[in-house]
Amino acid sequence: MTEKNWSGLEDKAFGFIKIPPRTIKPRDRGITVVADKGLGLNQLEDLLNLAGDYIDWLKIGISAPRIYSRQHLMDNIKICHKHNVRAFFAGDVTEMAYMQGAIDKYFQEALDLGADGVEISTAQVYMDLTEKALLVEKGAKTGLKIFGEVGKKGLGGWSVPPSYINKEIQALKDAGAYKIVIQGEGVVEDVEEINEKPLFEIAAKHDIKDFIFQAKDNRAHVWLIKNFGLEVNMDIESNQVIIVELCRRGIRKRGLFGLVSSIKE
Amino acid sequence: MTEKNWSGLEDKAFGFIKIPPRTIKPRDRGITVVADKGLGLNQLEDLLNLAGDYIDWLKIGISAPRIYSRQHLMDNIKICHKHNVRAFFAGDVTEMAYMQGAIDKYFQEALDLGADGVEISTAQVYMDLTEKALLVEKGAKTGLKIFGEVGKKGLGGWSVPPSYINKEIQALKDAGAYKIVIQGEGVVEDVEEINEKPLFEIAAKHDIKDFIFQAKDNRAHVWLIKNFGLEVNMDIESNQVIIVELCRRGIRKRGLFGLVSSIKE
Amino acid sequence: MTEKNWSGLEDKAFGFIKIPPRTIKPRDRGITVVADKGLGLNQLEDLLNLAGDYIDWLKIGISAPRIYSRQHLMDNIKICHKHNVRAFFAGDVTEMAYMQGAIDKYFQEALDLGADGVEISTAQVYMDLTEKALLVEKGAKTGLKIFGEVGKKGLGGWSVPPSYINKEIQALKDAGAYKIVIQGEGVVEDVEEINEKPLFEIAAKHDIKDFIFQAKDNRAHVWLIKNFGLEVNMDIESNQVIIVELCRRGIRKRGLFGLVSSIKE
Repeated sequence: MTEKNWSGLEDKAFGFIKIPPRTIKPRDRGITVVADKGLGLNQLEDLLNLAGDYIDWLKIGISAPRIYSRQHLMDNIKICHKHNVRAFFAGDVTEMAYMQGAIDKYFQEALDLGADGVEISTAQVYMDLTEKALLVEKGAKTGLKIFGEVGKKGLGGWSVPPSYINKEIQALKDAGAYKIVIQGEGVVEDVEEINEKPLFEIAAKHDIKDFIFQAKDNRAHVWLIKNFGLEVNMDIESNQVIIVELCRRGIRKRGLFGLVSSIKE
Repeated sequence: MTEKNWSGLEDKAFGFIKIPPRTIKPRDRGITVVADKGLGLNQLEDLLNLAGDYIDWLKIGISAPRIYSRQHLMDNIKICHKHNVRAFFAGDVTEMAYMQGAIDKYFQEALDLGADGVEISTAQVYMDLTEKALLVEKGAKTGLKIFGEVGKKGLGGWSVPPSYINKEIQALKDAGAYKIVIQGEGVVEDVEEINEKPLFEIAAKHDIKDFIFQAKDNRAHVWLIKNFGLEVNMDIESNQVIIVELCRRGIRKRGLFGLVSSIKE
Repeated sequence: MTEKNWSGLEDKAFGFIKIPPRTIKPRDRGITVVADKGLGLNQLEDLLNLAGDYIDWLKIGISAPRIYSRQHLMDNIKICHKHNVRAFFAGDVTEMAYMQGAIDKYFQEALDLGADGVEISTAQVYMDLTEKALLVEKGAKTGLKIFGEVGKKGLGGWSVPPSYINKEIQALKDAGAYKIVIQGEGVVEDVEEINEKPLFEIAAKHDIKDFIFQAKDNRAHVWLIKNFGLEVNMDIESNQVIIVELCRRGIRKRGLFGLVSSIKE
């Protein structure tokens, strides 16, 4: 990789202040996924103008796409592409389509709307691992990037033994998942203390760059950067992009001020 | 009513996924009132482009209209009308005008600014029921839709016996109120558990479609939809429109996933 | 001062409702500083169109300016100036520049970007008082307005005796600081009860108009207005501008409804 692939700070202000460099987009690690929970078009333009260099994917979220107009979704995705940000649909709509036996139509509609990926999760629905892996495989064949979610929200998903989580991860990767999404609940979210064990068990068995960690508060961001490095992939809220980038760069007050760096130049 | 009055989902994405239909605007039940606590014009455009089909009224809120420019309010209301959303002023300004003996000027200014209604409340001021009913009558005669608020915030308004609440509701309806607003505090808000009794007492005596329930968190939304149906009228925050519509449609994760429906086709 | 300098409500709605007058911009007291923690350009336009009359300074915040593009910052500041709002950079970037020995370049870049001021703080870095005063002096000579922060976040800054705080204030004023910023933490923020003593000690020794108080919740706003008057200078969040102005005018429900006034006409 040439020097050109690092930093991305050439047009930024106060250039004489040194901060750690980062890979630039398109990148395979250091990915920031931002949840779109109802961004309007002006708001999305604002966000991407301000921080587009720090956003890799927009996750069009909750079940909302079902009640948005096709036009809105196409406009939304077009704005993303203009800023070299890719867009995928969160797993909720995938699950609805699965439950109603409309999964082929679902992948086609995602493609028609211009999306670059979809998430495959099992948050509301029950599905055995073979079935889930088949779904990932089916999706990957359409050319969509597949985000395979591991763990199950609100159902004590993290009490299953690491050996099983591991098997699930492997099955989704083998089926062609682009990245594995590690849901935050019970690990870094809604827990008194960060539940470190499953995170280190994942890191022990796999390459950390294959994962995207849901991290919805600053404690989670800081833990992940501290332990998995400044280029850990994270799935965050749309109002956290600047804070998270400041953490990655070690210039976030009460985050990791001056303690994070990188040997890239 | 013809079939044309249902659903409103023709232009929406993932049309092959079935979700419960709803009445479409203009509608008399299933109304969503959205509080405007300082929306800018771009922000309002964003919201109405995204979710205008799910918003019936904008409530221009707290006492803010007094310190906004007339131009801003007129622009704001014009944007609403473009999206078939109506606008009314929250009761705070009404109360100030009442205290300063300027209620006729108040109704006139509301009309001049283009508003479709005003709220009449007794949150800060004391007023007997006859006086409040007269105020509603006066307002209704101007052609403005009157939202009559029942209950009194922070003053244990819900400790008064149901017979009196009932009398208040009846008096405001008789005086020509368009809808009765049931304030959330002490009922669905700032309570450890939903205070169900007054809600069921109201539902027992009156037609639920005559009421708008203030509901500012997801617990309140879910309770109201569970108990009063997916077309219960609610007064919500501007960042809750999508979440509430997903709840009404039974596709809100951790809300009422798949459990709400309707026999409309 | 002529009457023209008061009120600023001529173009506002519901003009027949009397509320306390205020000085108008540009003003030396009654200043509202608004923190920009990642406002997009549309969002900033929205805010200033809505409430520009109530905003004196935009504080471009946390360490974010380092990772924003120069173009964004220049556009951002241009919008402020269009609305007669001035802009300054928060102390975090100042501290980074100081630590890296680049303070002259820092002041120059701030001027080049169009800023009207910078904050000088000691939140992350250690610096003795002589050094801090020299920094203020250096900055003031460039023509930038200097906001000198007193107190140190998260380090029990408020346990130092009032005599020392007092010396710090005096040194920064003597060095040419435009205003002294009193950080909120430990005084009005993150405390069970407002820590009144240091606030009254400051008010006893100095003219309150030389200070800007960080006030990030309604309890703080109300305390400051109650005790230091409706024209106390405050540093608030961008979504609090309307609420704070309503408090200053005595028309904020659950704030200071009808209890704040002024003899200005």
